[in-house]
Amino acid sequence: MNVNESADQYANQYRKALLSDVIPFWEEHSVDREHGGYFTFLDRHGAVFGTDKYVWLQARQVWMFATLYNHLEQRQSWIDHAAHGAAFLKDFGQKDDGTWHFGLSRAGEPLGKPYSIFSDCFAAMAFSEFSRATGETEARRLAEETYYGVLRRLPSLPSPAKDTPDGRGRTEEAGRGTVDAGRRTQDVRLDLPMILCNVTIELDWMLDEDFVRTTTTTCLDQLFNVFLDPKRNVLRERLSPSGTFIDSPNGRLTIPGHGIEAMWFAMEIGERFDDRALIDRAIDVMLSTLEFGWDAKFKGIFYFLDIKGEPVQELEWDQKLWWVHLETLVALAMACRLAPTGSGQAVECWDWYERVHDYTWARFPDPDHGEWWGYLNRRGEVSIKSKGGQWKGCFHVPRALYRCMREFEKMGS
Amino acid sequence: MNVNESADQYANQYRKALLSDVIPFWEEHSVDREHGGYFTFLDRHGAVFGTDKYVWLQARQVWMFATLYNHLEQRQSWIDHAAHGAAFLKDFGQKDDGTWHFGLSRAGEPLGKPYSIFSDCFAAMAFSEFSRATGETEARRLAEETYYGVLRRLPSLPSPAKDTPDGRGRTEEAGRGTVDAGRRTQDVRLDLPMILCNVTIELDWMLDEDFVRTTTTTCLDQLFNVFLDPKRNVLRERLSPSGTFIDSPNGRLTIPGHGIEAMWFAMEIGERFDDRALIDRAIDVMLSTLEFGWDAKFKGIFYFLDIKGEPVQELEWDQKLWWVHLETLVALAMACRLAPTGSGQAVECWDWYERVHDYTWARFPDPDHGEWWGYLNRRGEVSIKSKGGQWKGCFHVPRALYRCMREFEKMGS
Repeated sequence: MNVNESADQYANQYRKALLSDVIPFWEEHSVDREHGGYFTFLDRHGAVFGTDKYVWLQARQVWMFATLYNHLEQRQSWIDHAAHGAAFLKDFGQKDDGTWHFGLSRAGEPLGKPYSIFSDCFAAMAFSEFSRATGETEARRLAEETYYGVLRRLPSLPSPAKDTPDGRGRTEEAGRGTVDAGRRTQDVRLDLPMILCNVTIELDWMLDEDFVRTTTTTCLDQLFNVFLDPKRNVLRERLSPSGTFIDSPNGRLTIPGHGIEAMWFAMEIGERFDDRALIDRAIDVMLSTLEFGWDAKFKGIFYFLDIKGEPVQELEWDQKLWWVHLETLVALAMACRLAPTGSGQAVECWDWYERVHDYTWARFPDPDHGEWWGYLNRRGEVSIKSKGGQWKGCFHVPRALYRCMREFEKMGS
Repeated sequence: MNVNESADQYANQYRKALLSDVIPFWEEHSVDREHGGYFTFLDRHGAVFGTDKYVWLQARQVWMFATLYNHLEQRQSWIDHAAHGAAFLKDFGQKDDGTWHFGLSRAGEPLGKPYSIFSDCFAAMAFSEFSRATGETEARRLAEETYYGVLRRLPSLPSPAKDTPDGRGRTEEAGRGTVDAGRRTQDVRLDLPMILCNVTIELDWMLDEDFVRTTTTTCLDQLFNVFLDPKRNVLRERLSPSGTFIDSPNGRLTIPGHGIEAMWFAMEIGERFDDRALIDRAIDVMLSTLEFGWDAKFKGIFYFLDIKGEPVQELEWDQKLWWVHLETLVALAMACRLAPTGSGQAVECWDWYERVHDYTWARFPDPDHGEWWGYLNRRGEVSIKSKGGQWKGCFHVPRALYRCMREFEKMGS
């Protein structure tokens, strides 16, 4: 079987799962017809076991259905489904100052959980894609104001260590655990520049091209020149505010799934601006992260690891999570298409793709009641018997299925 | 073999583990001779893999060594060890307003992590026991001021539902998930009245007897008349501020280890005030919680469960934690001694004691490098290969070994 035939088969597999299983599951089970918005606490059968509504997941589901409408097929039911969640978010999601709540009760009262800037990021994505579908100027205004609001509230980013190109000097310097208190208080984190890569490209259609180029360049500079451990070629999660490595369990923490997801965001930006060097570098970091994060004993990708191999503090470190494996499939599918044909990198990407594909498809989909499990233990057995909750909703599974389908369509015959 | 002989054997087993393994491990590996205080990030061999110092664990280690000095044997090395940590806490632990920091760097600079009222609770216990050993008035003043500071900052506690003695009416009323936002923001939690039971009894020697009686009665009233699910006889972790059940994943959360630990605190108060009814009730709730929390498939006690059996949101729900099993052994050993001789309850307590004992002693102690593992997976295999970290220090293992030793000494020949 040649690459084209494999690609065709994969594309069909992804299309079928997306359109015959996953999307219908959320259409059938998640709509709250009484109070608006979506239920996300869905058990293995799709029955609701909790009614709180988290803005991350409400916004991501709006984005998902609007994306399918805009890019796959203009089904009325899909844009109606997106409009259902967008209305709930417009009615209840925002605070007076324009920022977004984290959690809401079923009827929309804020739960008062701590603020998360990612609520705003996902709200911006949701209203961007929704306004693109409907032409609603109010939705577009919400997307723009929310996005610029995030950028205004950004903590100042550390600058790359121009003076110590290999990062070593800074690493040693910060290894004592005695940096002053004020600095330790505000450790900078990978997740924000990482997510902004994705949000900015999502809003590309409504933003000025130079602005998109500048903003994504700034974020990528953070990823590759500040958060990347130059020795291990793996992204760290937290640094001191001056961008130095902190040699503590917190500072040594890595989340391989974050690193790999960030690399497909980088590949997408590379394609957008025709930047071959960026694509090559993103593939390279993705492959090292995969090597680093792979569980040689039981297969699958670990959730948390200490970059030096010390014990981690996160109890769930060895679990196998749905989003980690799905984002890895997206990254690998893109890399298979983008790696130079016949190159050693291309071969390596295909090998990894097949390995992760086989692991993921054998364990995460639930053949009995549809949709995918979220949480497996180290051995790959289902640990939490639900399809959605506070963190898993209608997002990573369908987004990855959609993106992989598209990648393999491009590679197919 | 009769009960007396079993008790003698158990007492010897606990004494040997405490004095020949666990206490020497911390004496050998945890003292920071350069900056003061204790290292708690210790790998399987006792090597330091992180130097941040968390006030919970610093204070608990001071308390532990002072307790051994006061109640087991007046070894100079033990009170010196306690003094070493007490000095570090005095120098660096407190904020200007008299509250205590959560995390400190190796040299004592605050890490700026969010405030935890339990830092204050454990600091009060540490300086109480330390001043009892040394007679230092400054330490005693610190303990008193810190303790009264906690009581002054206590959130107002919900009153028991006098109008609905079985709690049912309130349970139904709060089941809608639509309680107003302000109330949801400040869910009340079990951990504070629970820990205050223990802290107050620890400070008994320096407090007015009527005050101890009133305060522990208030806290126990919270446990038995507010947090206890009257149908299942199991403690819930979070309630609405008016003391009602919230039928959401957060509101349904139970931590069996908390419930069981709280019941030995209650038994201790029952003994202090010669309250037989309290002791009987505590044993009864402990036994239901154990039935509820026991993993019938792989043995051991689950970490988190949903009170209605729905999927939990906590990824580590099925892990077997050291403190859960050790606190259960303490509760069961006390119950074996306190249950009426020959009663059905006594038989049940002995059966459970032996079951939990065999499980715990077969898996948690590390025969190769000493001390106990903290985190096992559901199958009872070691998941995190360290002896200490941000949450595990010199506390639950030696406290439980000490208390169980004492219980079996009392029951022995």
